Amino acid sequence: MSGPQTPEQTLDAQGDSSLCRKDEDIREGTQSSHRMLGFSDALLSIIATVMILPVTHTEISPEQQFDKSIQRLLATRIAVYLMTFLIVTVAWAAHTRLFQVVGKIDDTLALLNLACMMTITLLPYTFSLMVTFPDVPLGIFLFCVCVIAIGVVQSYLLMVTVIFLPYISKATSWCKDRLVGHRDPPTHSAEVFSFDLHEPLSKERVEAFSDGVYAIVATLLILDICEDNVPDPKAVKEQFRGSLVAALGAYGPHFLAYFGSFATVGLLWFAHHSLFLHVRKATQAMGLLNTLSLAFVGGLPLAYQQTAAFARQPRDELERVRLSCAIVFFASIFQFAIWTAALLRQAETLQPAVRFGGQEHAFMFAKLALYPCASLLAFAATCLLSRFSTAIFHVMQIAVPFAFLLLRLLVRLALASLHGLRHLRPAQPLRSQAPEEAQSQLLPSSC
Amino acid sequence: MSGPQTPEQTLDAQGDSSLCRKDEDIREGTQSSHRMLGFSDALLSIIATVMILPVTHTEISPEQQFDKSIQRLLATRIAVYLMTFLIVTVAWAAHTRLFQVVGKIDDTLALLNLACMMTITLLPYTFSLMVTFPDVPLGIFLFCVCVIAIGVVQSYLLMVTVIFLPYISKATSWCKDRLVGHRDPPTHSAEVFSFDLHEPLSKERVEAFSDGVYAIVATLLILDICEDNVPDPKAVKEQFRGSLVAALGAYGPHFLAYFGSFATVGLLWFAHHSLFLHVRKATQAMGLLNTLSLAFVGGLPLAYQQTAAFARQPRDELERVRLSCAIVFFASIFQFAIWTAALLRQAETLQPAVRFGGQEHAFMFAKLALYPCASLLAFAATCLLSRFSTAIFHVMQIAVPFAFLLLRLLVRLALASLHGLRHLRPAQPLRSQAPEEAQSQLLPSSC
Repeated sequence: MSGPQTPEQTLDAQGDSSLCRKDEDIREGTQSSHRMLGFSDALLSIIATVMILPVTHTEISPEQQFDKSIQRLLATRIAVYLMTFLIVTVAWAAHTRLFQVVGKIDDTLALLNLACMMTITLLPYTFSLMVTFPDVPLGIFLFCVCVIAIGVVQSYLLMVTVIFLPYISKATSWCKDRLVGHRDPPTHSAEVFSFDLHEPLSKERVEAFSDGVYAIVATLLILDICEDNVPDPKAVKEQFRGSLVAALGAYGPHFLAYFGSFATVGLLWFAHHSLFLHVRKATQAMGLLNTLSLAFVGGLPLAYQQTAAFARQPRDELERVRLSCAIVFFASIFQFAIWTAALLRQAETLQPAVRFGGQEHAFMFAKLALYPCASLLAFAATCLLSRFSTAIFHVMQIAVPFAFLLLRLLVRLALASLHGLRHLRPAQPLRSQAPEEAQSQLLPSSC
Repeated sequence: MSGPQTPEQTLDAQGDSSLCRKDEDIREGTQSSHRMLGFSDALLSIIATVMILPVTHTEISPEQQFDKSIQRLLATRIAVYLMTFLIVTVAWAAHTRLFQVVGKIDDTLALLNLACMMTITLLPYTFSLMVTFPDVPLGIFLFCVCVIAIGVVQSYLLMVTVIFLPYISKATSWCKDRLVGHRDPPTHSAEVFSFDLHEPLSKERVEAFSDGVYAIVATLLILDICEDNVPDPKAVKEQFRGSLVAALGAYGPHFLAYFGSFATVGLLWFAHHSLFLHVRKATQAMGLLNTLSLAFVGGLPLAYQQTAAFARQPRDELERVRLSCAIVFFASIFQFAIWTAALLRQAETLQPAVRFGGQEHAFMFAKLALYPCASLLAFAATCLLSRFSTAIFHVMQIAVPFAFLLLRLLVRLALASLHGLRHLRPAQPLRSQAPEEAQSQLLPSSC
């Protein structure tokens, strides 16, 4: 298009050293595994959250009460969802561990990884088959086949690449020496596989997996809305006398549920993002707490599906609002627990700014405590004012995003006034000193 | 929990310079936008592909023929899907362009970005409302409101951060100077906003968006399978005399469709991944071709839903197999076109190994030509042997993954034999020369 010469030359100048490395990789048939891991994380996060769909789509007809049989069905499905989430997360953790050992991949490994992913996608299905038919051995058999297949593929990857490959490459180079009589330079097998086992969990992969879960959970309800909530032209003519507004009004609760769900998931992601921005390294305990938090985040569409059902069934309103509050509470309290776990080993896990006494410590505390407090408050309010439970819940939904903005403003003001005070206070006694020294006192000691 | 001292110290030693930079960012309230962009890409890719659901879920009862009215309904829905995909991709491109200008973000921008994402999620819904009710102005109005809202938020971001903020920060520092009488060091506003407009498209974001689309498309069918295809215990007892195997056999075509869909999407992702591994820089033309390729990839669940319907409706088999072949063909031929477009400006866009005459050029050509050739072959075969069209399609599904592996093996063998020949041939005449010189001849000239 326009002027291809200049960028080309600058690129050539910049990328020369990385190009040489890449050429070397190509000769050996290996490649960086970065993008494949991102794709795997996206797939695994979708699979982990997929079993919430049968829960959210549990149909309760308006005549039916929220009785024992439906409660049992719902409880079974929620249990299936939670177990599936944990099983897939364990598979993800094994995958993470494996690719901490296998630093670079070739085409065969990429294809094997795809096969492994496809087997993992079958885990939720076989698991729910096993639960639905506890007496039939076929369900258990299929589930075990899946687990064994995943184990075999992963251990095959591990064995081939880590244990045998160095010997094979040594053997082939020895054979070559004998046949050709030409001495090759030593192979780079040590560089291909980086034994980075000291780091307990890769922070990047925890973030990527969490992002995937938050993204799919935030959009799960829009998938339903786009498909089901476009009114039928015939029905609009007959039932609503051609008024599209009236027809859309009937779907009002669905839209409200969607907005509430998206806003809550989005803000929980925001809190998670703020927290991990200051995390230097993730420990096993933080990974476990993150998984638990994500499992409850996955339950949020259920909570908001329940609020959509209010409008039609005012009788069971109270239980549903309380269930929603409980899900939001657990999702956010486990996020808070991640921070607590990080604070216990803060020198290792956190940036200086958010450690005890750091500049951002109080702000981070407030950010992470906002949702647990709001949901607890809403829960308590429904106990006292049980008549207005729906209104209370909606007020909480609307208030929390503004609370985040208010918090931001307050912190800005507090920091600015603190800054101003600091500027004003040392300015008088230090006026005689050199300005460089005054400057250095304002900086944190770590820099 | 073992030995926290050693990793801590090494981390401290490594991360000192980046820590200082991070601390500086925290004081200014800004943060790197990397993770927010990844999350936005994941959301946008899900929204772009969501409108394929109404297409795949178009119910055709066994009595009904594949007649005009259903063809029209299907055509409308496919058109809605394609238009939605293009609209969301345009919104994504604007978002990419915006965040090439806005290099770093603060909390307010992150929250605004979430609001912008939520508005974008409503685009598919309002668009399909507009198409379903072309006579009612409300649909068009709502769609326009969405588009305008997105435009307002994005241009607000741009104006606030790029145009006004430098002036505001200058003005505040000037006021501070006057009030406090203390001279601040010049603000880093130039560093916060990197004007990287020379690069037409960010390669990382093209990859992230494509990964998201491939991941959600690959798993769209498992979402349905997990929900719908767990047989009901009562139905198994009554209809299948308690035999779970027979009950699952009834869902056979669904599973076959899932495997076919996952394998094809996975392998197309693999080809895309191989291609972009060798791309240094993406041009506008490559971005456009990538979008077209992804739009057809999004249609793949439709293609395989159609193959699931074969078993029940043998009459329309031929049209469906041909439709599936056409979708696969277009998805893969646009991938091939990306490579062609890259080759036209190869010095700027490609790594040396895959340029004309490069070591991997022929291999890349074969990889990208595999699916177009296979789908064309299958299409031609259905014209000649129209009776066996289903069998031909299934053979293609099974054959292609093995063809990829075979290709890999062949290339390995070819490279090894070439390597062996090179070793053998120059070894005799060069025996008198220094071994270093012989070695240097074997390396590519670029290193």
